[in-house]
Amino acid sequence: MSAFIEPIGRLINQFTKLPGVGTKTAQRYAYKIINMTDDEVKEFAESIIRAKNEVKYCSVCGNFTDKDVCDVCQTRDCSTICVVKEPKDVLAMEKAHEFKGVYHVLHGTISPMEGVTPNDIKIKELLARIAQGGVKEVIMATNPDVEGEATAMYISSLIKPLGIKVSRLAHGIPIGSELEYADEITLSRAILDRKEI
Amino acid sequence: MSAFIEPIGRLINQFTKLPGVGTKTAQRYAYKIINMTDDEVKEFAESIIRAKNEVKYCSVCGNFTDKDVCDVCQTRDCSTICVVKEPKDVLAMEKAHEFKGVYHVLHGTISPMEGVTPNDIKIKELLARIAQGGVKEVIMATNPDVEGEATAMYISSLIKPLGIKVSRLAHGIPIGSELEYADEITLSRAILDRKEI
Repeated sequence: MSAFIEPIGRLINQFTKLPGVGTKTAQRYAYKIINMTDDEVKEFAESIIRAKNEVKYCSVCGNFTDKDVCDVCQTRDCSTICVVKEPKDVLAMEKAHEFKGVYHVLHGTISPMEGVTPNDIKIKELLARIAQGGVKEVIMATNPDVEGEATAMYISSLIKPLGIKVSRLAHGIPIGSELEYADEITLSRAILDRKEI
Repeated sequence: MSAFIEPIGRLINQFTKLPGVGTKTAQRYAYKIINMTDDEVKEFAESIIRAKNEVKYCSVCGNFTDKDVCDVCQTRDCSTICVVKEPKDVLAMEKAHEFKGVYHVLHGTISPMEGVTPNDIKIKELLARIAQGGVKEVIMATNPDVEGEATAMYISSLIKPLGIKVSRLAHGIPIGSELEYADEITLSRAILDRKEI
């Protein structure tokens, strides 16, 4: 990095902290910044500071919000809770425009390998919400990987005894893809979960 | 973008101004920022502001520097000037560890299509440097595209009458690549420029 003068080297170093950004890309970003106007650079830097300062977690569901309780929790049907791993999963769900209930963000999934226990993620908070009553169904929308499945099973085992319906997102062949390209695990799951037509 | 709360949406919007960054990538960057510590975010934002404020153009060669005259201009052999399009080309040349002279950054190449005339790039400044005397050779290292070639030819036509040697970087098959994969223009150039061994 010695070829760079110090302020550029430092900025490149900062950009490499972003996910998937190597030195080459960070360098392109840094040059772009230097070629921006003073006002543009100020706006850029302020957006970073403001996002960090203003974005909090919703005190109910744990999703990102700039209020105390997020818009979703304030306006939607609270009888169905969709449980996801991270805030970005809420975004993915919202894009599908299918779910009308509220969310619960776990901020992680149980992973003995990485030392993440049930106490490290927001399971207590979910149980507290359910204890307040009015919840009819909990949809487990954690990822279909080992940790996501284990977390879904664990939470389900805590909630089902309370007489609440627990469901899991369907797995199967993605719409628009071809059988030929489906991996074998997805395909075997699609066979097991086949629906009568 | 309505799915995002305002501070996140604004930051995502800022990140999309970086070269090659779409909404998905900008979103990943924004989430990374929000997950950083307050100190890390402050450092990130300050690096941006500082890079913009401290990086100037060398008053001699036009490359990025944080001084009035850059280290290269202050310490290296001024009798050979390598002319490049942009500051990042200086970096590429420096990595080759072959050139021991100084640079001249044009900040563009002549492009009638995009309305860039010889007056819009730093050609006057190059002629002024040469007028001060002591320059023996000018290496034209603009890119081997239409604009780069035209600019090299134009500048060469101004400098040659002054009795100064003007050269151009060699074109040919890249080291380590195979003939089979060389494009036909490169290959025909390599044939024309063949060297006796």
